[in-house]
Amino acid sequence: MWAFVIDQFVLEDQASLFVGDLAIQRGYGVFDFFKVVNFVPVFLDEHLDRFYFSAKEMRLKLAYSKDELKKIIFELLEKNHVSDTGVRITLTGGYSQDGYQLSNPNLIISLRSFNPPPENQLAKSIKLITYEHQRQLPHVKTIDYLMAIWLQPIVKQHSADDILYHQNGIVSECPRSNFFIVTNSNKIITPSKNILKGVIRTKLIEAAVTKYEVEERELSISEIKNAKEAFITSTTKSVLPIHQIDEYVFPKENKVTALLYLLLEHSQFLQTQKV
Amino acid sequence: MWAFVIDQFVLEDQASLFVGDLAIQRGYGVFDFFKVVNFVPVFLDEHLDRFYFSAKEMRLKLAYSKDELKKIIFELLEKNHVSDTGVRITLTGGYSQDGYQLSNPNLIISLRSFNPPPENQLAKSIKLITYEHQRQLPHVKTIDYLMAIWLQPIVKQHSADDILYHQNGIVSECPRSNFFIVTNSNKIITPSKNILKGVIRTKLIEAAVTKYEVEERELSISEIKNAKEAFITSTTKSVLPIHQIDEYVFPKENKVTALLYLLLEHSQFLQTQKV
Repeated sequence: MWAFVIDQFVLEDQASLFVGDLAIQRGYGVFDFFKVVNFVPVFLDEHLDRFYFSAKEMRLKLAYSKDELKKIIFELLEKNHVSDTGVRITLTGGYSQDGYQLSNPNLIISLRSFNPPPENQLAKSIKLITYEHQRQLPHVKTIDYLMAIWLQPIVKQHSADDILYHQNGIVSECPRSNFFIVTNSNKIITPSKNILKGVIRTKLIEAAVTKYEVEERELSISEIKNAKEAFITSTTKSVLPIHQIDEYVFPKENKVTALLYLLLEHSQFLQTQKV
Repeated sequence: MWAFVIDQFVLEDQASLFVGDLAIQRGYGVFDFFKVVNFVPVFLDEHLDRFYFSAKEMRLKLAYSKDELKKIIFELLEKNHVSDTGVRITLTGGYSQDGYQLSNPNLIISLRSFNPPPENQLAKSIKLITYEHQRQLPHVKTIDYLMAIWLQPIVKQHSADDILYHQNGIVSECPRSNFFIVTNSNKIITPSKNILKGVIRTKLIEAAVTKYEVEERELSISEIKNAKEAFITSTTKSVLPIHQIDEYVFPKENKVTALLYLLLEHSQFLQTQKV
């Protein structure tokens, strides 16, 4: 498998960074991740826009324009001959002289296959546990997943699938996905602050407003536990229903979630048929 | 220059990790850093104890016992023929299959020269600015310096040298050093909670209690701004006086800080003359 590291295409066994890189030394970097379906990168512009935004927020200057980066991505996909995959673009703090000051960032583009949502995605559902934590610089897609990975044993201990972060009872997001509820009056509510604005979150809201009232606002744990449905959104998971949060079990029906899932899949389907 | 990566000694141009490592992917890792003076690693046992503690807290299992690791460190120093240097030991989340689950950790030991405190260290002093932030998992020496590096332009903008973190007005630590004040009644006070317990912090307290009353407890910004002296401690900086925090300028004399500096240097001197 080919990857692209710093300024060249390399085979996997050459895809490495020197240990002086600021990601390894100081956990400093940003990334983005998008799907390729049927040879078409899904929502590529949205992901690249966010990637450049993340880089700028962290003062990491990309050596390539958006168009140049796209060209590299397409060349990489071609070299690897895969129709369906995930693509991860990472930009690190670079090789720092003193292990602290930022340097020229290092770019990595690598393919990572992932399990697409199964046919019976809607029949699946997950359990979340709430945990008090606020990600640092939440509006930026940094590589900081220290707490999320550190919390894995606690997730398992509760027979849960993932974490829902909150601060003082106000929920924000899951470590790798955005969070939504559906109220008894079919209102869609999703947190607006202290979150990473997911590409699929935006797409879901765009689809949802055609059918429902959507509110982006502060959302408390107690409000969640009066909701009719709840779900998460992400690039890899699309829309995934939640059946339980802490001790609260949601009613079994997921009608609104199911419709939103179909609307979203449809918009993705349209995109991948463009070419 | 030689380094040690995973399980072997390698030259600098081979000291690299594949991009799938969890430090690069997810900012997941721990480290420690100690000085070598006159061929003697200073406070090596204390640093290794903390390194193993950090690793355990992050569920990273070292392949080497403490004695084996020491042997590798001494062999590395010998191979590099340097009498005075810094040594950094890093342990990352390893090459994860799915880019999220922990794997066998990757060990890196590398030398990093640093400027030792100058002869006139006490004549130097620094300015801090306070900033509201709490490091995640503060008791562990993780590689997470995202905020510290991100804040550098704000430090410069205030013509300051470093940051003093606080939460709701209760101070904790600087990104790479511990914080102390000296009250008007010559009491030494240092924060006790939400901090990384520095090796030099411990050594300083051990030295200070022979001369002064020392309190490890909650410390507020307003209390700081009534103090007579303030200083930071770290492996690279030893004891460094502070002349200003935000707008508050400390009185010019640093008598207590100076004595503590001398006591600490003496204890380090004794250690490096042991062999």
